[in-house]
Amino acid sequence: MPKKINKINSSRRSFLAGSATVAGAAAAASVMPISIASANHTDKGARGLPSWTAWKKRSALIIHSDKGMETHRAAIGNSVITPLRHVYIRNNMPTMSDAQIGNRNKWKLKVEGVKNPKTYTLAQLKQLAQKTEATILQCSGNGRGFFAHKVRGSQWETGAAACLIWTGCPVSAIVKDCGGLASGVKFLTATGADMPKQLNPKKALVERSIPAKARKDAFVAWEVNGVNIPNSHGGPLRMVTPGYFGINNVKHVGKLAFTAKESSVKYMKSSYRISPIGKKGSQYPSCWEMSVKSWIVSPLKSAKSGNVVVSGVAMGGTKKVSNIKVSVDGGKSWKKAKFTGPDMGKFAWRRFVFETKLKPGSYKIVSKASAGGKSQPKLRMENRRGYAHNGWLDHGVDIKVS
Amino acid sequence: MPKKINKINSSRRSFLAGSATVAGAAAAASVMPISIASANHTDKGARGLPSWTAWKKRSALIIHSDKGMETHRAAIGNSVITPLRHVYIRNNMPTMSDAQIGNRNKWKLKVEGVKNPKTYTLAQLKQLAQKTEATILQCSGNGRGFFAHKVRGSQWETGAAACLIWTGCPVSAIVKDCGGLASGVKFLTATGADMPKQLNPKKALVERSIPAKARKDAFVAWEVNGVNIPNSHGGPLRMVTPGYFGINNVKHVGKLAFTAKESSVKYMKSSYRISPIGKKGSQYPSCWEMSVKSWIVSPLKSAKSGNVVVSGVAMGGTKKVSNIKVSVDGGKSWKKAKFTGPDMGKFAWRRFVFETKLKPGSYKIVSKASAGGKSQPKLRMENRRGYAHNGWLDHGVDIKVS
Repeated sequence: MPKKINKINSSRRSFLAGSATVAGAAAAASVMPISIASANHTDKGARGLPSWTAWKKRSALIIHSDKGMETHRAAIGNSVITPLRHVYIRNNMPTMSDAQIGNRNKWKLKVEGVKNPKTYTLAQLKQLAQKTEATILQCSGNGRGFFAHKVRGSQWETGAAACLIWTGCPVSAIVKDCGGLASGVKFLTATGADMPKQLNPKKALVERSIPAKARKDAFVAWEVNGVNIPNSHGGPLRMVTPGYFGINNVKHVGKLAFTAKESSVKYMKSSYRISPIGKKGSQYPSCWEMSVKSWIVSPLKSAKSGNVVVSGVAMGGTKKVSNIKVSVDGGKSWKKAKFTGPDMGKFAWRRFVFETKLKPGSYKIVSKASAGGKSQPKLRMENRRGYAHNGWLDHGVDIKVS
Repeated sequence: MPKKINKINSSRRSFLAGSATVAGAAAAASVMPISIASANHTDKGARGLPSWTAWKKRSALIIHSDKGMETHRAAIGNSVITPLRHVYIRNNMPTMSDAQIGNRNKWKLKVEGVKNPKTYTLAQLKQLAQKTEATILQCSGNGRGFFAHKVRGSQWETGAAACLIWTGCPVSAIVKDCGGLASGVKFLTATGADMPKQLNPKKALVERSIPAKARKDAFVAWEVNGVNIPNSHGGPLRMVTPGYFGINNVKHVGKLAFTAKESSVKYMKSSYRISPIGKKGSQYPSCWEMSVKSWIVSPLKSAKSGNVVVSGVAMGGTKKVSNIKVSVDGGKSWKKAKFTGPDMGKFAWRRFVFETKLKPGSYKIVSKASAGGKSQPKLRMENRRGYAHNGWLDHGVDIKVS
């Protein structure tokens, strides 16, 4: 299997060399001085893992750029929870180093927009209250690679997504400990501590506002899949916003503020806006809540005739995924598939299997999930930056059965 | 944290040096020729990991012997699922090597005691049917270290247990594909393919029989926590018997047989029998179904006064764990704790937290779980080999709050 994966990577890389990867690198360079970029994002070779996340499993990843690494569709695993070494990486700022972070238990979180503003150490948060929850981390641009127009950014297909189990302190417990919300607040704004000082906050500060109601589910986490959150996934403390796109799960979080307005930095105001092709601006919706979605994980290219187990993952976004159907004829006819494996709540995805028999021939296998009374649409919602793709057709796979 | 763990290990090791570890090594030597033992179980140093499982995280483990490695109580993680690098190891036979296993998809499973006996390859099992489930792997002797009489075997405390997510083919699907059960069968007997040929099967074959009704839940798994089952955990194919003690989850499984009688090998007939101290024999119950149990994971030694989050894990054995209570005064008074994190079904454990305030002083913190109308007993059930300990008192922790 590793051989096959590398092959796919290599053809993919050459396709990308002339377009998106170069564009992505240029975009990064415009924000970040080269000295910082190279100090933090040094590749170990053209196809290697960056040194700051060398513990990842290379064969599980498609490397789009030194800040964008996608989990291969075949490497997501069948165990619902994505193995940490296989989980995708998407960075806006350089990953903080151990030296920059220092003693993890002394990491500070400033809390504002509450009756009694406070600063907590991580050690204090651990003793205030704890919650463990499985959530999906999904880049807003997951599925961008399926868009037909020329979209800037990593050409993610299915693998800028992972289902993970986090442990942290509920934002609701912090608010309670701070005497409740200040008046007039509408947003929960989280700020990363990862911006190098010499950069301009308006352009480079990772600060994201989500509706204040999201505080009921949100938490600040120090653990993922049973270990301290690795630096490259935003440790020692990361905002977790169940049901919301990845960008809102702010890495290296240093401040939580309840605010009357959305943050005015670029990453809130102009980036991550779902606008029509050719248009942009803060009047368009931000990448907040995720939608119902599913995709096939196996088989991917070929299968032997006879018994075939089709499997995949299905998510509801902010609603519990209730139903999953599979078609082996590109959507002409559908059959109900069954969920298997633990149901970890509405913010996790579920694994599904469809046990069938296939004769030799060509098949287009697609899946369609439903949640909260809504099903996945057939087609993508066209938009400038290729965000929030949940159309079922593009996510299908073409299989040869022999 | 690693430093602290190593400290505990080191004092523990010196305590054990004169007793159980030596006894355990002697027991192993009696079954296995030294040449085989050293070929498969070479330590990288007195405190190192054996080469066949060098990918484990050393600081997460207490090394009792070259075939028994325990997860440190603090290293179980808070994410319900135990990270694979932290999971305990208990081997009866040497772990099979890649060379011995060969092409994993060609691994064979012989099925007998059915209408139409068959031999499947792993590739065929993958295409027959699939199931994903979270189960607890727990050594029968977990908690042996708390027994007061001199018990032979690794002195496990809490860490010969893990909660894992497996993917495999249901035994029920295999039985159906083989035309149903043969007549007169009472047991499901699984046989490991890991016994070196020169050994005597009566003494060294890992073959375990469980009641045939267990076929409804049992499956043969090729994946754990999203990756192929590592050799040292019994890959490429392992029997998974939800709710049953670890030994029944036969590693490197090569044969499944529905049988009229229990296997007559030592590992079934005389080992793993829960007998009174000073007595032994196959008339005593085998280590089959696990019981309700819980233990504290944090804090372990000390805490700062004020807010304190007490946390741990609770399992129901074969029943869903329904209730968990915590006492900070050694069991004089109890308060209800709350479960947090995904409920992965009755065969998984649940994480619990108890948020309290503690003044400076000494505390004995204990936990008591209930499942199916039964609660953990206060005391251990005394037995010759120190099996199946689920008494709550011994599993408590003594804490200094300052």
